[in-house]
Amino acid sequence: MFNRKLGKITVPVAVLSAVVAASVIGNFPNAKASEAEAAGNKPNEIRNVIFLVGDGMGVSYTSAYRYLKDDPSTPQAERTEFDQHLVGNQMTYPEDPKENVTDSASAATAMSTGYKTFNAAIGVDNDGSELKTVLESAKEKGKATGLVATSEITHATPASFGAHDMSRKNMNGIADDYYDELINGKHKVDVMLGGGLSNFDRADRNLTEEFQKDGYSYVTSKEEMIKDKNQQVLGLFADGGLPKMIDREKETPSLEDMTSSALSRLNQDKDGFFLMVEGSQVDWAGHDNDIVGAMSEMQDFEKAYKAAIEFAKKDKHTLVVATADHSTGGYSIGADGDYNWFGEPIKAAKRTPDFMASQIVEEGADPEKTLKQYIDLELTAEEINAVKDAAEKGKADKDKGILRVDNAIEAIFNKRSNTGWTTDGHTGEDVPVFAYGPGKELFAGHKDNTDHAEIIFDILEKSKKK
Amino acid sequence: MFNRKLGKITVPVAVLSAVVAASVIGNFPNAKASEAEAAGNKPNEIRNVIFLVGDGMGVSYTSAYRYLKDDPSTPQAERTEFDQHLVGNQMTYPEDPKENVTDSASAATAMSTGYKTFNAAIGVDNDGSELKTVLESAKEKGKATGLVATSEITHATPASFGAHDMSRKNMNGIADDYYDELINGKHKVDVMLGGGLSNFDRADRNLTEEFQKDGYSYVTSKEEMIKDKNQQVLGLFADGGLPKMIDREKETPSLEDMTSSALSRLNQDKDGFFLMVEGSQVDWAGHDNDIVGAMSEMQDFEKAYKAAIEFAKKDKHTLVVATADHSTGGYSIGADGDYNWFGEPIKAAKRTPDFMASQIVEEGADPEKTLKQYIDLELTAEEINAVKDAAEKGKADKDKGILRVDNAIEAIFNKRSNTGWTTDGHTGEDVPVFAYGPGKELFAGHKDNTDHAEIIFDILEKSKKK
Repeated sequence: MFNRKLGKITVPVAVLSAVVAASVIGNFPNAKASEAEAAGNKPNEIRNVIFLVGDGMGVSYTSAYRYLKDDPSTPQAERTEFDQHLVGNQMTYPEDPKENVTDSASAATAMSTGYKTFNAAIGVDNDGSELKTVLESAKEKGKATGLVATSEITHATPASFGAHDMSRKNMNGIADDYYDELINGKHKVDVMLGGGLSNFDRADRNLTEEFQKDGYSYVTSKEEMIKDKNQQVLGLFADGGLPKMIDREKETPSLEDMTSSALSRLNQDKDGFFLMVEGSQVDWAGHDNDIVGAMSEMQDFEKAYKAAIEFAKKDKHTLVVATADHSTGGYSIGADGDYNWFGEPIKAAKRTPDFMASQIVEEGADPEKTLKQYIDLELTAEEINAVKDAAEKGKADKDKGILRVDNAIEAIFNKRSNTGWTTDGHTGEDVPVFAYGPGKELFAGHKDNTDHAEIIFDILEKSKKK
Repeated sequence: MFNRKLGKITVPVAVLSAVVAASVIGNFPNAKASEAEAAGNKPNEIRNVIFLVGDGMGVSYTSAYRYLKDDPSTPQAERTEFDQHLVGNQMTYPEDPKENVTDSASAATAMSTGYKTFNAAIGVDNDGSELKTVLESAKEKGKATGLVATSEITHATPASFGAHDMSRKNMNGIADDYYDELINGKHKVDVMLGGGLSNFDRADRNLTEEFQKDGYSYVTSKEEMIKDKNQQVLGLFADGGLPKMIDREKETPSLEDMTSSALSRLNQDKDGFFLMVEGSQVDWAGHDNDIVGAMSEMQDFEKAYKAAIEFAKKDKHTLVVATADHSTGGYSIGADGDYNWFGEPIKAAKRTPDFMASQIVEEGADPEKTLKQYIDLELTAEEINAVKDAAEKGKADKDKGILRVDNAIEAIFNKRSNTGWTTDGHTGEDVPVFAYGPGKELFAGHKDNTDHAEIIFDILEKSKKK
């Protein structure tokens, strides 16, 4: 297995313990007798932890999504599910010799292990040593564990909770870790739901069969996932990442579907659980400077977050924490001197620009008809011609052609909504932190990304095995 | 005077009262007997309110400023004075028929009166009716009051606390309001420190003399301000806005100097005080896409904020709240695909690009010599030539010439620091809220800009006259 590196944890345990203890004995107004209490949990005891990551979900995204959803018939902006539980912001910087803006691997490793490390690192420190994650700690305490994502389930964020690798690119090796690295003789991740079939079902190894041999269910559609009730499951719904929410067909589960399925399985463990859920593609849309895709994935993530909150409200012994790993794209609400940002043009899109570009370039669909089919707007001749022109120019090279057409379609939405971007990479500003349930106050104020791991380790340490 | 419009306050007073009461009777670990208690204040009673606004200071600014100040000899990023007291974020949107991204007047009116209104509105509602401000409420309760800013003291933010006008542009009328609008027969602002001499000493009226006739001191330099101990003072240190911090000569007070001077005067009132302090020019630098100026003004504002916190720590009956009215410029930490943001090139500037451009275009200084005099960097031939070129091209028109040269110098810092911008206007994302002292918990979580006024009105309502 891997070396556990605990010597570097710097927050004095006594201090943290005192805070956690205060939370455990504190009075929460909604604490009532629940099933969990009947099963022997004390009021405010934290039995389950659900940690959600909106990849790339900086404060521009959480703010814009509120305004996108706004009901124009009321004078106030309605708060989102996130807003209602905002407790503070966190720093995201990595400890990388060459870069001071984090990538998703380094940020997720900070949040899963309590160590800042280099960009691309999956659960390893700067010297390459493997670091214990909060998911692994939960499994050591006998809890059930789960990873849910709309990216490959072996992608940087989920990988940093369940694997160890010098490079996020080694997604096959990360899938191997999920199977090969045992804790007390057991697989460490009970529930894996997401994309990345190609990393599990390979020429050199078929992990889908290996997991099934060990008692896991294996599902590849929403229907199969819903029918299956096994506590251990591998669900892979795409070769790579899942389609974005507004591009999905009905056989593909939403992030909410996967989260609910995970919760119903994990909740069968009397010792409680740790679940990590990632809204993976807010970031992907940000890299692409695609505001339609970004808002689609914000909605997908909000619904999953709401499912977690609803579960926690009922359970009363579940801590829910949601945050981002960094922001992406230098996205701004308003651009080019205009004091307006409009959600309507974005909501007029029935598919992402990526999807439309693929239809036009790969399927040979007519540009104008495609735009009219998937965008509920009166497009100008200039907008239509820009896409036609991109399609024409892109015919020589299919890959570049998709990019050209995609950019031309994105430009329509960016311009009409007054969305600004400064980069196709990440940015370094603090990101919001949301928390609900017993222990939520531990996450309040100004935090570092490493604090999440340190607090959760401490909660797990106090969590009694039944 | 003006009509007081109270019917629209929507937060149920009973709810707020209960929360405020809880804060007043709550246990704060640092509450010890103080001078104020000896004078009859109960523990945790809120006697004074200091409200600070970092104009344009979105989360990118507060985060970048931390990394700018970072001590490279330690592995962690040191927290700023702001970070230590982060309690949440707030929404900034206005209620404007044409724009959904706020300006400073509308945002300040929301924070000073509890009403969202149109952009440009100074303490008036959409229908033009005048709204009571928290500063006016404080004066009604017999408290001392103050306005401190690095802009004209009649500029949008301070004006929205002490005046009423359909347009922020009417700065002469706003100065008139400060003198003419009496509360219980008294001037409503006891301490005014900032810029804007030209709005007070005019061809049609000399308000500096009128205020002096009524017992105010009148000071125009740091030295005069420090020597004078009068409870009522008008201090005007520039015709318009003050120079930015790194451009100031020694006769110009810093925002910290003005804040400390205001506090020592206001604190003489046994009934307590309300003070609004604005770091006005973070926003101005943001509009200009000038990262050097922005960080200069962040430092100026941080020092003033620290002075407020230090006062509150000693006093124990002072609530300090700091926030921004909006963010500016679509500023991002990192740009153009690069995962780095560098503070060093910014710290190498001894003056702002504005200052250098003015030297070159207005004073006829040599471009290369000016750059070398004020920038501690080995500039490339390309950088120097771009500035020379701008100076040459700008000779025909002095105003445009300054802009050209300014932009060319800013480009050096933006490029070297990897700073991104999307607009020369404002942006709509949520901004951070910081709070310290009794009642700080009332500002925690996700707030609207109107909440500040509503909470402060309620605190003032409970505040007993001695």
